Amino acid sequence: MYRTNHCGELRLQDAGKKVTLAGWVQKIRRMGGMTFIDLRDRYGITQLVFNQDIHAELCDQANELGREFVVQVTGTVSERSNKNKHIPTGDIEILVDDLVILNESVTPPFTIEENTDGGDDLRMKYRYLDLRRPNVKNNLVLRHKITFETRSYLNKQQFLEVETPILIGSTPEGARDFVVPSRMNPGQFYALPQSPQLFKQLLMVSGFDRYFQIAKCFRDEDLRADRQPEFTQIDCEMSFVEQEDILQMFEGLTKHLFKTIKNIDIQYDFPKMTYADAMKYYGSDKPDIRFDMKFVELKEAVSGNDFVVFDSSEYVGGICAKACASYTRKQIDELTDFVKRPQIGAKGLVYIRCEDDGSFKSSVDKFYSQDDLRRITKLFNAQAGDLILILAGDKGDTQKALSELRLLMGSRLGLRKTNDYKPLWVTDFPLFEWDEETQRYYAMHHPFTSPKKEDIPMLDKSTGDVRANAYDLVINGVELGGGSIRIHDSNLQNKMFELLGFTKEQAEKQFGFLMKAFQYGAPPHGGIAFGLDRLVSLFAELDSIRDCIAFPKNNAGRDVMINAPSAIDEMQLEELSIKLIETKS
Amino acid sequence: MYRTNHCGELRLQDAGKKVTLAGWVQKIRRMGGMTFIDLRDRYGITQLVFNQDIHAELCDQANELGREFVVQVTGTVSERSNKNKHIPTGDIEILVDDLVILNESVTPPFTIEENTDGGDDLRMKYRYLDLRRPNVKNNLVLRHKITFETRSYLNKQQFLEVETPILIGSTPEGARDFVVPSRMNPGQFYALPQSPQLFKQLLMVSGFDRYFQIAKCFRDEDLRADRQPEFTQIDCEMSFVEQEDILQMFEGLTKHLFKTIKNIDIQYDFPKMTYADAMKYYGSDKPDIRFDMKFVELKEAVSGNDFVVFDSSEYVGGICAKACASYTRKQIDELTDFVKRPQIGAKGLVYIRCEDDGSFKSSVDKFYSQDDLRRITKLFNAQAGDLILILAGDKGDTQKALSELRLLMGSRLGLRKTNDYKPLWVTDFPLFEWDEETQRYYAMHHPFTSPKKEDIPMLDKSTGDVRANAYDLVINGVELGGGSIRIHDSNLQNKMFELLGFTKEQAEKQFGFLMKAFQYGAPPHGGIAFGLDRLVSLFAELDSIRDCIAFPKNNAGRDVMINAPSAIDEMQLEELSIKLIETKS
Repeated sequence: MYRTNHCGELRLQDAGKKVTLAGWVQKIRRMGGMTFIDLRDRYGITQLVFNQDIHAELCDQANELGREFVVQVTGTVSERSNKNKHIPTGDIEILVDDLVILNESVTPPFTIEENTDGGDDLRMKYRYLDLRRPNVKNNLVLRHKITFETRSYLNKQQFLEVETPILIGSTPEGARDFVVPSRMNPGQFYALPQSPQLFKQLLMVSGFDRYFQIAKCFRDEDLRADRQPEFTQIDCEMSFVEQEDILQMFEGLTKHLFKTIKNIDIQYDFPKMTYADAMKYYGSDKPDIRFDMKFVELKEAVSGNDFVVFDSSEYVGGICAKACASYTRKQIDELTDFVKRPQIGAKGLVYIRCEDDGSFKSSVDKFYSQDDLRRITKLFNAQAGDLILILAGDKGDTQKALSELRLLMGSRLGLRKTNDYKPLWVTDFPLFEWDEETQRYYAMHHPFTSPKKEDIPMLDKSTGDVRANAYDLVINGVELGGGSIRIHDSNLQNKMFELLGFTKEQAEKQFGFLMKAFQYGAPPHGGIAFGLDRLVSLFAELDSIRDCIAFPKNNAGRDVMINAPSAIDEMQLEELSIKLIETKS
Repeated sequence: MYRTNHCGELRLQDAGKKVTLAGWVQKIRRMGGMTFIDLRDRYGITQLVFNQDIHAELCDQANELGREFVVQVTGTVSERSNKNKHIPTGDIEILVDDLVILNESVTPPFTIEENTDGGDDLRMKYRYLDLRRPNVKNNLVLRHKITFETRSYLNKQQFLEVETPILIGSTPEGARDFVVPSRMNPGQFYALPQSPQLFKQLLMVSGFDRYFQIAKCFRDEDLRADRQPEFTQIDCEMSFVEQEDILQMFEGLTKHLFKTIKNIDIQYDFPKMTYADAMKYYGSDKPDIRFDMKFVELKEAVSGNDFVVFDSSEYVGGICAKACASYTRKQIDELTDFVKRPQIGAKGLVYIRCEDDGSFKSSVDKFYSQDDLRRITKLFNAQAGDLILILAGDKGDTQKALSELRLLMGSRLGLRKTNDYKPLWVTDFPLFEWDEETQRYYAMHHPFTSPKKEDIPMLDKSTGDVRANAYDLVINGVELGGGSIRIHDSNLQNKMFELLGFTKEQAEKQFGFLMKAFQYGAPPHGGIAFGLDRLVSLFAELDSIRDCIAFPKNNAGRDVMINAPSAIDEMQLEELSIKLIETKS
């Protein structure tokens, strides 16, 4: 061992001890005849002291060290005169009497500090240096803790972690698979799993009862911001359970993680909200409930005043921004510009200011009397000083736009603190989604999702209204996980295929394998999967998942550090029985 | 929840309780007016009783259940009159008063029993049913426990589990990579990692200090028996350590696993043996030291008696099989046939029987007097009743053949019990291997393996004799893990490349990326990786890794259950900018 202690552990009570440390040179300062070095390792920083008067030669040697040199020092722990209260080792320093350079370093391309001068591209290219920065390192420490505590909890609950294969078969539907040509089976391909869904359901057929896996999944999609071609899921499945059993189990997991990782003790049951209510009150299936500001539907209240925008709209709805009546014309124009951005897509914004004197000022004063406005603001329980913001248009689009406006106002009012966690179960998702283009229903979750028992009679007549035993865990507006109870009854499953427009032959071709397995005694079962990358970024209070992954890829799916993907040998292609198609680009 | 208890937990003290169980019908027996059902779940078997006299209708219903039906029953726990001592729930049974069929089952293609009538191919095709068999299920439970305890131990030792990417770049040397065409980067390919070697060394450069990962690895090799295209490693790396630190840490892990999983308390330090001694005394770099039977080199002792086979051989060596002098001519012929098999490749076998009367009987009596034979057997410390078996020929081949013979004799003498575990560190592996064909040295482990400090002066003159800081953990003749201290000094690394015959340009092309990272302050580091599949099979006392993997592939790399790999759509190929080469087969 090259050290007796690491750089984060020595304290005042260690004063007088002879120790050996090893690490990286973070900083060198010369003051009078003294040289001070901050020595860094994974655990922290310890100050080293070299005294020109005592060890001239050693001090000269220290003065020639460069940033990021790897050194080993031996010396005596000593109380500091100038204590540093910002670091745990700030009460002590090491009076060095031996120094060994273990390795030199060329000058790094950016500073190894929390606030670095390195841009994103440079940091990714030298990710191995970026990972030395304490904040990036801490994200990975956090990720380790989260997976460790997840396993501890699930192990205690008798879940078994089972590895399912990475080299599987291509599935015909859904997002694009990555494929892997098989050398031993020319012309044939493996696919990388988009999730272990098939295998976890098979494990239930096998009787494994409580399965989980922290599993790598792969999706060859065009990468929007904050997507990665490979990502990690906490994938779980249980047998002999109903929806409520699954919610309880994984609410327990979530609380366990908050307690052990963040020391946040959530004593209450997570609130539940139906998908219908989530859309009605928040215009989103993943509402941020750190703040209230619920939608109020106004169609009825505003109709009949000859304001054609409202009268002709399918939906009119608004939110009440507390104490924002003082917003200037300019500030309101900004909000209008925000909702009119193409990504949001609203046509305009109507406001009502609840003035301190009890009067109202609105952009639609022309159509609505003071009494009308009082009646409307009452629906929001608005107080003097509040600002009502109203959008109108198609129901779906307007709710979505209003949701964005709500989130913006929440942020502006400081109601979305990253360390204030508000979990929520969203339940009763629709079983089907109607697709206008192909004029057919699609399964909103997947074709094995079970309808709610009481909705089964509606399958034929009100297909679109049938609710699923499907649920999402949402925290602070982020969908952290989702799952469903699966169909285990083959008659019901056949009915589903029929409603989804599959012929018997198509269903057989696409899902026959799992259907066959289900003939041999499939138990009632259901499950859930959590996005680990998002979970870590939520706990790390980050906006992006990128820095929660040790070696992420960029938006073009490239690892710029190792320069992958890249061309391969002609010979290798030949062995795989494939050749390239010349592209016209 | 569909149940109050599982099928493995009810005991006599639960008698009188009302319980609900759910599971699979293992067996139905009718006796008089009673019907007995063995209900099975992951946790065990519980006997259900239906009484024709009490619940005639229920009993009729029970009689119509088939094997592997999924049922839910409610009833009262009751003491059995005929107790079954072979199962933990054998003291009780459930007097059923409610039965719900949760799912039916068609007749399974083989019996769901420890000793099944299903052949290997059928079992793999219906792996989801095979996994219901208690022995196969128990292997996966064991695998879960081993990974869980591995993580517990390493977490306690401040190791961080870091996920490294699965979509990486192709490496130019070594076994074949699986590759993945990139849709977004036409003509370019990712590769799947053969190990996280590169990334774990980068993490050391990043200062992560103690890394591990239970990592999927991939190798597109022709599959010999007991290899899988995807396999799992417990992959570890440490910084600021010397070889002895790594051996101690992972000896600790191994002992922790034996203690927590098998309840075997290994109090002693694992013995260490150099590679040179392993070859000299056991003819193998993974000696099975559950039994002694060391090789005795006889070249000197047997030369000069005009026995041309021995005189002309580079190597003559033998083993002493205790108390086997009574072997018949036929038995010895069998051994001779064994060593002459092409896989073993010996030309013949010489024996010396140490008779009870103190005389010797040998197949080479003609050349060796009784005194000669006494002198030879003394080298083995042979006793009356022992049998000496001798092989001669080229040193390497003969040692290998003698090693096989030793293992066979160990098995015959019952010295290789599967539950008798004898761990061993094999150390001081050669740094280089000479390849006759290409007339150059290759790195025995990999080009970053560090030579032993004291051997560095020999690098130029006695290259082949240089020993590495490389080590294997061997248990019962199985290589469970291996690793090395890495080179962190760039001068020494350049010297290595030179000795391996790389030009500066070649080294730059193949290893430049890692070498560049090493310029920024690489700490001294080293690591080890364990084969998880082998570790589980060792603990499960199995010969093969196949049944320690939930969904394994066959020797052609196929998953016969899901029929992967398989052909994919023309359109999908086109999107990936590749096409198939027609094969001539």
